[in-house]
Amino acid sequence: MSRREAGDFHPALPCTLPLPSGPSIDMTSQTPYQALQSELHEIATLGSVQSLVSWDQETKMPEATAQARSEQLSLLAGLLHERQTSSRLGDLIDSCQDDSTLVGNEEVAANLRELRRDFDLASKLPADLVTELARASSQGQGTWKKARAEKDFGAFQPSLEHLVDLARRKAECLGVPEGGELYDALLDEYEPGVTAAEIESIFIPLRDRLSGLILDVAEEGTPPDEAPLRVHVEESRQHQFGQFVLESVGFNLGAGRLDITTHPFCSGIAPGDTRLTTRYNEDCFTEALYGTMHEGGHGIYEQGMLKTENWGLPTSSAVSLGIHESQSRLWENLVGRSREFWVWAMPHAQRILGEGFKKFDADSMYRAVNTAKPTFIRVEADESTYNLHVMVRFEIERALMSGDLQVAELPQAWNSKFKEYLGLDVPDDSMGCLQDVHWAFGLLGYFPTYCLGNLYASQLWEAASEQLDGLPGLIERGEFTPLRHWLNEKVHIHGRRYRASELCERATGEPLSADPMMRHLEGKIRPIYAIDH
Amino acid sequence: MSRREAGDFHPALPCTLPLPSGPSIDMTSQTPYQALQSELHEIATLGSVQSLVSWDQETKMPEATAQARSEQLSLLAGLLHERQTSSRLGDLIDSCQDDSTLVGNEEVAANLRELRRDFDLASKLPADLVTELARASSQGQGTWKKARAEKDFGAFQPSLEHLVDLARRKAECLGVPEGGELYDALLDEYEPGVTAAEIESIFIPLRDRLSGLILDVAEEGTPPDEAPLRVHVEESRQHQFGQFVLESVGFNLGAGRLDITTHPFCSGIAPGDTRLTTRYNEDCFTEALYGTMHEGGHGIYEQGMLKTENWGLPTSSAVSLGIHESQSRLWENLVGRSREFWVWAMPHAQRILGEGFKKFDADSMYRAVNTAKPTFIRVEADESTYNLHVMVRFEIERALMSGDLQVAELPQAWNSKFKEYLGLDVPDDSMGCLQDVHWAFGLLGYFPTYCLGNLYASQLWEAASEQLDGLPGLIERGEFTPLRHWLNEKVHIHGRRYRASELCERATGEPLSADPMMRHLEGKIRPIYAIDH
Repeated sequence: MSRREAGDFHPALPCTLPLPSGPSIDMTSQTPYQALQSELHEIATLGSVQSLVSWDQETKMPEATAQARSEQLSLLAGLLHERQTSSRLGDLIDSCQDDSTLVGNEEVAANLRELRRDFDLASKLPADLVTELARASSQGQGTWKKARAEKDFGAFQPSLEHLVDLARRKAECLGVPEGGELYDALLDEYEPGVTAAEIESIFIPLRDRLSGLILDVAEEGTPPDEAPLRVHVEESRQHQFGQFVLESVGFNLGAGRLDITTHPFCSGIAPGDTRLTTRYNEDCFTEALYGTMHEGGHGIYEQGMLKTENWGLPTSSAVSLGIHESQSRLWENLVGRSREFWVWAMPHAQRILGEGFKKFDADSMYRAVNTAKPTFIRVEADESTYNLHVMVRFEIERALMSGDLQVAELPQAWNSKFKEYLGLDVPDDSMGCLQDVHWAFGLLGYFPTYCLGNLYASQLWEAASEQLDGLPGLIERGEFTPLRHWLNEKVHIHGRRYRASELCERATGEPLSADPMMRHLEGKIRPIYAIDH
Repeated sequence: MSRREAGDFHPALPCTLPLPSGPSIDMTSQTPYQALQSELHEIATLGSVQSLVSWDQETKMPEATAQARSEQLSLLAGLLHERQTSSRLGDLIDSCQDDSTLVGNEEVAANLRELRRDFDLASKLPADLVTELARASSQGQGTWKKARAEKDFGAFQPSLEHLVDLARRKAECLGVPEGGELYDALLDEYEPGVTAAEIESIFIPLRDRLSGLILDVAEEGTPPDEAPLRVHVEESRQHQFGQFVLESVGFNLGAGRLDITTHPFCSGIAPGDTRLTTRYNEDCFTEALYGTMHEGGHGIYEQGMLKTENWGLPTSSAVSLGIHESQSRLWENLVGRSREFWVWAMPHAQRILGEGFKKFDADSMYRAVNTAKPTFIRVEADESTYNLHVMVRFEIERALMSGDLQVAELPQAWNSKFKEYLGLDVPDDSMGCLQDVHWAFGLLGYFPTYCLGNLYASQLWEAASEQLDGLPGLIERGEFTPLRHWLNEKVHIHGRRYRASELCERATGEPLSADPMMRHLEGKIRPIYAIDH
């Protein structure tokens, strides 16, 4: 009601002069499917406002407005939930499912299948549970932060017990699939259709193979020289290099941004608006470089998927967290940590990052960025050991859900698994089970998608290498477009048309397997560490 | 419906887990006034989201998302208009006006008076007119931009004719006050309660006195040396100096920001979130300095007014554009162009802006920033001639509304008035009647508030000088807090409690008059130009 903008060149519209609402479509002449599309487009528009406000909160917001900001986000979440669970939306989906003229259209069928799923899932959660989950998650983050700082699991334990109870209640509401377990209902939110048993059948043999590799590296390997990682690089040069790499691999900065935050992320806000963030460490330039390539991979997926014409439809949305993560990992690890990448990147690094790189060559850089050794913190882990960190979490949260493990026993279970898989003694819980924020949010079932992402990435990469002529040479020459187009065609443009497992089979000809990742890691790490078996 | 955020540290909340909507207030136990406050708080929250999205559009938005952005803003404008004109809001205002327990509470009475006004005004405009105004304004900006670039008024004329017709229709809907003219209904939107006749009674004698001063300066004055304005200063130093000045005068950067845009503005988004923008010219550092102080003045008003506890109430909103502008002009001109300011600022300028300022002193800077000479472009005009630019526009738009002037005759009317008041021959319409965007937005009645702002600023400044002990000395020592507190107490905290004219009388003891501004300008310009009468 007040004039909120001032300044000469920017006259504010007076309060009695609102812009007209929405595109002026004559609703009466729409088919049910067109009406559904309009409704979803508007829901997506509202969702994009929420994403933008969240992005601002992480990147630009003054501290002093935290209270007002949480009210803004609350209000938007409420408006959005109202629309997403409205009887109007339910009726539109019903009408389309009853519409015989739509039969046989595969894309429409996929959209209706996924919309029905979303709508039914959203409607299954009682309002009081939704409210309590949000409250407990907000409270949990507070106690977790304090507990981690004070290395005191006991201070977090009551919050986590409550969050685990709520997760169990939520899983019961969502419903356990035939023959499945409670944990499956949670997994299904992040990786639709996948079950704990399926994940286990991949993880157990993978764990043994990885542990074997790590053990060989530790016992017999000759570690690469890490000097190239220690060159001091000022922030502005790193930023310039990061932008150069992003544009080279094909992230469109004209339809996005790169900003600085404590916690890097990618937000696909709207068509033409995908924003990445990163953070800079002047004494370890690879943190930002690989962080930027990681978020850039997420961003290339969003840019390949978000289209104005079908915005808000499932076929213009990400299929699963695992597939999303595969896109970030592929550019970060399969491309960015390859020898070919450094053949291309080294002259640019020498030019942009500075003189300090003149004394290194592509090969020394390639070896340095592929150091493999067990460490305590997952987000700092290398490409091989990272997956073991995820497995520890998967086994623990699955046991928490089944009741085989009590929250009070968590630190002990963590430390013993960590010792077994990674060979390290956890010094305190801040380096152990308190390191991640996910459980404080009440997010159980999320972690496995990180490892699935690595597996999908390797399998897609192997398929791309077979299907694209001379991929290594292309990378060496900085010709990233064929790879990006391949991913675009095989993954991005489909959105949620196929489930992740089907998408994988269609793109690679095989169901998901740990073999491509193990071939990739074995084929890289053993030579770098001069292990000849 | 899709996961829109990715990145390790920033787990996205799954789509089925919305945050609870709004503060959980038990509606049944609220009084009608509390219910009204809650409703207004929520409307303000929604409005603040709109402001934030607009801010982002001007400062951070990638070009490629323009289409989605206009849909976001349209949707928000629609949601906001729905709430602002809802029968629920109307009923709540009715209930409070009927509530005998509220009688005698002056603040509540002021809020209800202003809410009734807003609600009735918003309800007076038919939906088709609102839509057509928005459409014509959007179209008008396009044709204006082209016409200005091509110096071709004819290309803009049809759009402007339509916008003037719409403005007339709008004024008729809003209603002409007893004994007033059509133009008054438009003025009332920006400067509630003021009439064209009142403005004229101040403007006519002011025009003669200003023209006399300008003539004396041109004919007899010795212009100050402008060399201090021509020192090259790189952007980063200007930015640092701007932030230093803002913080010194009392704009809280911890509850706001300063960014770069083509068109500087201030947006009071929410409590704790007031954002300023500026632009840098490395060959004229005073452009950004005074632009920043100007927006900083708007921002100090917003920060002094926006409070969490009464957010959304009229008493926490700006009273008028004239008063808002008085706050920016006071800091920009009365403080920033004073000798005392430069006594304080000069050592800091030498330290932060660079060595180039070592050869100038406070007095030479004071004289240089007070150069007075007629120029063509309003936004580049000096403190004295600026008001004549406004008067040209006031007379023209008043005549357009009364029908005494046709749009086709506008350039001729402009040029002849410009010659008469400022003594210059307008070379083409881009330097004349096409220079401002306001009419292209359909904003008639807005311009006079710029001059009213200057008048209020001088009158407030004179009162502050009388009421505060040793104000010049305080400024010289960089002690800006007493002045800011005085403005806070006399202006900011009242919001719309009093109309602008009453606020002025309460703060200064006098009705608005041109005398303080003329005393200020005469007392400064004549000595600087060595005119001894």
